[in-house]
Amino acid sequence: MKDFKIYEGNITTPKGFRASGVHAGIKKSKKDMTLIVSDVPCEAAGVFTTNKACAAPVIVSKENIKTGKLQGIIVNSGNANACTGQQGVLDAKEMIDATAKALNISSEKIIVSSTGIIGVPMPMSIVKAGIQKAVEALSYEGGKDAAEAIMTTDTMAKSIAVKLEIDGKEVTIGGIAKGSGMIHPNMATMLSFVTTDINIEGDFLRKYLKEMTNKTYNMISVDGDTSTNDMVAVLANGLAGNSTMNENHPQKDKFLKAFYFVHEYLAKTIVRDGEGATKFIEVEVLNALTVEDARKSIKSILNSSLVKTAFFGEDGNWGRILCSIGYSGVDFEMQKISICLCSEGGRVKIVEAGQGTGFLEADIDKVLKHQDINVIVDFNMGVETAKGWGCDLSYDYVKINGAYRT
Amino acid sequence: MKDFKIYEGNITTPKGFRASGVHAGIKKSKKDMTLIVSDVPCEAAGVFTTNKACAAPVIVSKENIKTGKLQGIIVNSGNANACTGQQGVLDAKEMIDATAKALNISSEKIIVSSTGIIGVPMPMSIVKAGIQKAVEALSYEGGKDAAEAIMTTDTMAKSIAVKLEIDGKEVTIGGIAKGSGMIHPNMATMLSFVTTDINIEGDFLRKYLKEMTNKTYNMISVDGDTSTNDMVAVLANGLAGNSTMNENHPQKDKFLKAFYFVHEYLAKTIVRDGEGATKFIEVEVLNALTVEDARKSIKSILNSSLVKTAFFGEDGNWGRILCSIGYSGVDFEMQKISICLCSEGGRVKIVEAGQGTGFLEADIDKVLKHQDINVIVDFNMGVETAKGWGCDLSYDYVKINGAYRT
Repeated sequence: MKDFKIYEGNITTPKGFRASGVHAGIKKSKKDMTLIVSDVPCEAAGVFTTNKACAAPVIVSKENIKTGKLQGIIVNSGNANACTGQQGVLDAKEMIDATAKALNISSEKIIVSSTGIIGVPMPMSIVKAGIQKAVEALSYEGGKDAAEAIMTTDTMAKSIAVKLEIDGKEVTIGGIAKGSGMIHPNMATMLSFVTTDINIEGDFLRKYLKEMTNKTYNMISVDGDTSTNDMVAVLANGLAGNSTMNENHPQKDKFLKAFYFVHEYLAKTIVRDGEGATKFIEVEVLNALTVEDARKSIKSILNSSLVKTAFFGEDGNWGRILCSIGYSGVDFEMQKISICLCSEGGRVKIVEAGQGTGFLEADIDKVLKHQDINVIVDFNMGVETAKGWGCDLSYDYVKINGAYRT
Repeated sequence: MKDFKIYEGNITTPKGFRASGVHAGIKKSKKDMTLIVSDVPCEAAGVFTTNKACAAPVIVSKENIKTGKLQGIIVNSGNANACTGQQGVLDAKEMIDATAKALNISSEKIIVSSTGIIGVPMPMSIVKAGIQKAVEALSYEGGKDAAEAIMTTDTMAKSIAVKLEIDGKEVTIGGIAKGSGMIHPNMATMLSFVTTDINIEGDFLRKYLKEMTNKTYNMISVDGDTSTNDMVAVLANGLAGNSTMNENHPQKDKFLKAFYFVHEYLAKTIVRDGEGATKFIEVEVLNALTVEDARKSIKSILNSSLVKTAFFGEDGNWGRILCSIGYSGVDFEMQKISICLCSEGGRVKIVEAGQGTGFLEADIDKVLKHQDINVIVDFNMGVETAKGWGCDLSYDYVKINGAYRT
């Protein structure tokens, strides 16, 4: 049995978090402004895009999160406030100030996040009116609206909550995320916001958020393009009343399992809703020399256009998988590597000792016709493992990203 | 005026080279076996795939080219002899031995190259009979057949010749190449073979082939997947009778210009015939801090699925270009970067000082409706420049690589 229970909840499921999702008017008719606020100041952790052309809200939020204490997050969709120069930075700061003023908390305790069209100045009068509206709409049941208002061309809102017991107290972790897909001229952006009422040490939270990010969000790929606006933020307000979670807490592993589950769930859901995706691909690497090698080879497989189109075509094209490992830069020996493809339709070993196994086409067809496919690569060299998730490359990806103006 | 003249020639245009292209039977009906032979031993230079899962012919040819002297190249299409284990290596060696025996030259002077389906054992009786046929068909006019027999799903044969005068002697350089595209389960492969009758120092030839490769073949991208079989080989037989070309030769620059032109031409032609390509994209980076930065940013732009689909959709999506530079890992300052898009339809500056210029949609539409598009990125930081070439990502790419079995 699991150490935690999964709920159809979201960021307002943990104690003491209110949220809202409203229509400010940046988008024509859909919700475009999300506000997340804790009743009390939180320990906070954030991970931001490494893209050097990072957006104004990323620049500003990275600065504010340095204190490790936050109380709120203001998010808009419809405009990424990216490549907007110094005015963009001023606008991002003004969004924070307006939110802080309306909530009567200090600006340093707020971060801002944006996703949408890039290179277009923020329509600040609309945005500021939207912030007022979002503040007025705050509620302890607002998580669902919040999850909807960060969507761009996502086909579904993404949220989850888990509950577990720590020190005999009920602890809840809730999260919302958005994935890839915009029908405006810009790039996809990944956003993930997680709230929890656990009482936790800030440094501990930050350390493990980084580790979780490397294992989850950093192991997904829709199209290999790293956005200017990616952001993951966690707020922990301590209202569960447990004794402070840290490295020495006896239930540390129990918490980390639940914490990891939430991030992995949100990351996988983003991929499942990838632009044009018809397949969900999990790649697991076994027995690599280093974790870095395992991760690098997974990313190379998941980013290969040839591998992705083969999955779209339901084609057991194992040469492309081996080829993409070959140019990934990892250390391996051809004569030791084996590869399996699995799904509900069965399990077929396609490569053994670096050579094709002469599997039956009929068997591989049975595996590939399913939506969820597992690729298992065994390097047979070391003891390190890793997992990553991606999707196929379909006509619809090309359509969504290329042909929408014609 | 140019220092050299361009001809509709190929690898048999230089003096003393014979070639053939025949149907051995690896493919159903198309030519599948190419042989290139010089009348006399040549100075040789080769560049091979860096893919760790490299094919048997690559392993064997890398060994043979170490002496720096070659006289012939045997090439088959239809089977890549990749991921074929120790038997594949034995088969590649046997192809060399059979060719050497039939030509009565030593095996060490022959290299072998293969492209086609991977993971399938070479049909050696067919291959050996094909080698005999190719030897019998050798002629001083065989270059056209040779260019055809290395094709896979290329839509056109790729060849060129240039002539220039060195020491008052006519020197000729000829080349053939194949690009990407196979409707069998395997990856695309790039092959390029260049012959010349110039009298040249071996180390000089090898040094500049490496430099040219970095500037030409290594700067093209169709889909970012590095093949297991890529190979570039140059044979120089010295029959032009010039005094030995080397670092101190007074006409060194003249030769290098022509040599570069041939490689750039072949590389660009491969991209132009990229799988499903409807656009030919040249990216030029100006004023970067280092050549490495310039090249890295070019590759990042050309490999971005979002940039590629935008070009397919004729969408002036400058944010995606800037984004792909942002995650390329190069050193730049947002407030200095500018980007132009040019074609026969005009020239539009789309980014200035890291921000959109507010260009007119009508102007950018005029630029993007043409087939050949130039992207000019000016970092305004240093003095280094570089160029690279790629293509768009179209429905047909997905079709060719994904849906051909359905």
